[in-house]
Amino acid sequence: MVVGAGFIGLEVAEALRHRGLDVAIVELASQVLPVLDPEMAHHVEAALLGAGIRLHLATSVTGIRQSPGDGDGDGVDVELAEGTVLASDLVLMAVGVKPETTLAVAAGLVVNARGSVVVDERLRTSASDVFAVGDAIEVVDAVTGGRASVPLAGLANRQGRAVANELFGRGAQLSPTLGTAIVRVFGTVAATTGRSEKALRAAGIACHAVHLHPAQHAGYYPGAHPMDLKIVFGPDGRLLGAQATGSEGVDKRIDVLATALRASMSVDHLAELELAYAPPFGAAKDPVNMAGFIAQNVLTGNLTLWRAVDLDEMSFATSFLLDVRSAEEFATGHLLGAANIPHTELRGRLDEVPPGAAVRVYCASGFRSYLALRVLRQSGWDDVASLSGGLETLLAERPALALSLTLGDHRSELSGAS
Amino acid sequence: MVVGAGFIGLEVAEALRHRGLDVAIVELASQVLPVLDPEMAHHVEAALLGAGIRLHLATSVTGIRQSPGDGDGDGVDVELAEGTVLASDLVLMAVGVKPETTLAVAAGLVVNARGSVVVDERLRTSASDVFAVGDAIEVVDAVTGGRASVPLAGLANRQGRAVANELFGRGAQLSPTLGTAIVRVFGTVAATTGRSEKALRAAGIACHAVHLHPAQHAGYYPGAHPMDLKIVFGPDGRLLGAQATGSEGVDKRIDVLATALRASMSVDHLAELELAYAPPFGAAKDPVNMAGFIAQNVLTGNLTLWRAVDLDEMSFATSFLLDVRSAEEFATGHLLGAANIPHTELRGRLDEVPPGAAVRVYCASGFRSYLALRVLRQSGWDDVASLSGGLETLLAERPALALSLTLGDHRSELSGAS
Repeated sequence: MVVGAGFIGLEVAEALRHRGLDVAIVELASQVLPVLDPEMAHHVEAALLGAGIRLHLATSVTGIRQSPGDGDGDGVDVELAEGTVLASDLVLMAVGVKPETTLAVAAGLVVNARGSVVVDERLRTSASDVFAVGDAIEVVDAVTGGRASVPLAGLANRQGRAVANELFGRGAQLSPTLGTAIVRVFGTVAATTGRSEKALRAAGIACHAVHLHPAQHAGYYPGAHPMDLKIVFGPDGRLLGAQATGSEGVDKRIDVLATALRASMSVDHLAELELAYAPPFGAAKDPVNMAGFIAQNVLTGNLTLWRAVDLDEMSFATSFLLDVRSAEEFATGHLLGAANIPHTELRGRLDEVPPGAAVRVYCASGFRSYLALRVLRQSGWDDVASLSGGLETLLAERPALALSLTLGDHRSELSGAS
Repeated sequence: MVVGAGFIGLEVAEALRHRGLDVAIVELASQVLPVLDPEMAHHVEAALLGAGIRLHLATSVTGIRQSPGDGDGDGVDVELAEGTVLASDLVLMAVGVKPETTLAVAAGLVVNARGSVVVDERLRTSASDVFAVGDAIEVVDAVTGGRASVPLAGLANRQGRAVANELFGRGAQLSPTLGTAIVRVFGTVAATTGRSEKALRAAGIACHAVHLHPAQHAGYYPGAHPMDLKIVFGPDGRLLGAQATGSEGVDKRIDVLATALRASMSVDHLAELELAYAPPFGAAKDPVNMAGFIAQNVLTGNLTLWRAVDLDEMSFATSFLLDVRSAEEFATGHLLGAANIPHTELRGRLDEVPPGAAVRVYCASGFRSYLALRVLRQSGWDDVASLSGGLETLLAERPALALSLTLGDHRSELSGAS
């Protein structure tokens, strides 16, 4: 059993599973990889479950006891908060790191509430001749300007160089921290840079988010696979964070977005990035450009998005839920209460849309519903919104919906009876 | 036979070779992919030759004639400028594109000497109600500010969006062009963004260049392969261009550098980029960070570089050519006239280095020679330089040197008698 579903916990769980062990993961948060937004972490959870790993989320270990029935005496019973008891031969703790700053405290250096050594922008501690670097220090978050603890190797490396420069009279050059990170779990890659939507909302920072599911390279070139990309940006268009999951090309897009974040780019800049295109590598409109285009549409008002949370509160007395996929797609599974008008037929079937209704459009990934939104806006409906990222994102936000509406093998379509 | 060794010519040559055809390429320039610097194009030439394609560089086709000895009458003899005659069943012209602007000229629009339609920053032609986009227009080069013709799909896409925005009253947003491009030829990827060193030198723009050969991800993780990375930057540190070749991870680094170029980043910024690191994807110090570090060392004067051209002019009366690889590596091949002191032994063998000599150090890839340079500078030698990119780059700049000094299978070592 692995306790903790952060980067280390998941990498260890994968390694143990590859060795043929029966593996369970226990995580306090209601999702794996708490640094990600839940709908992005969902794709990693699916990869773990698909590999036969059991997940115990939103719970904690309350006790570990010698297993009474274990013959050789090395088995234990692990008790979880909700009462479940799991028999285990090996319990691996991967619940995060805590600064070991006993020496710093004994020396009288200032540490924060978490125990991290407080340093200034030149990495000087409260004793001006003493510098500190690495996982044990407090760093500045590039997006919020707040203080954070980011125990990553790349960052520790940069801090070491900065202190060396400072000591040799060249001045420390240390930019605030983006927290760029990546992990691969059973062929699924998950990566992040900047802040998550949930972290920004928790900090009271206004933001928009867009979701998209582009292929990592031109669709007509063999081997195209969809990725899930999310960018988070402020009302002023400034990029605040990005997350991606998928099998290929995820690291590239997050590195481009980390570079854009470092440069304080806006979504307009993302739309204008000139990235390397040949069919094996990308598309004339790269996923990062596409994210910029969609975000521009949100900021200009061309596109209004709705999300899972809006479905919970939707009133069918005033709202019209419209599925604009093909009749074949609709027949294999759709949201309860939705009407079906394929987007290619919408202009000729506007009489089926109640006048004055709040129209909530959806399709599989968010593209066709955007086109339908534009048709409806031009035709006099003012309150129209398109489901962000389509059913793919909705089902990642609310996996329980999949009980009545199941994603098939081809991710851009739905299969299974509704 | 394929005439022209640009992106299209190479992609077609590869496809024909995969079909089992005997393929020759004729190219006017002295290298394939003239958009690259020659030592970077060399890696692509090696891939082509390795796949059995014959290269005829620095020549041109002067005539194509019906082959007299060809029974079915569809074979031709292709005559090259230097007199060679090549029999061929198929001659494919891929010598670049030229704007077809007959209509624009007939309508009285201003075109440049190349025939490209001249447009302003809003993509308006000389007739203010007429807009032009795509391969037929003249664009602004982001690095030099000069005018250029860049027939790439991504760019044409952006121009179309910009004109649509302009027509609908939102104003065209079109950034100057970086000319980011990529091609894969027989498993070797070559990519570029911004300007090449040769283009900058031809335009009289001062620049530095650094070469490095990092692995695409952590060396201890299975599947690490070296890439060849070159960045070009101004005396003020501003990034001006980048090129890379290799089997994996090339597209990612060029996309990061294209984003950095778009943001007018300096090499200091490259050193500070916070890119996604896990062993399958990169290193705690990514190749892009490493390029920034080396460039910083050049600008601070910590590192002075020498190149192939300096070897041509080197006087052994005043210069001391020093190979700091291991004795085993030295024994399997080295530059004529070089002394060998492994860098780990240098501090104890300084008496073997002539006092006051101009010391020209080299190793396989440039790292050990940098360390040796620092030792020598600290020990009183003022005129010390390290071979940029080591023997790997030298042999790409001067492939003929490989006749006496051959690169073995393991690229970071040399094999074959000297």
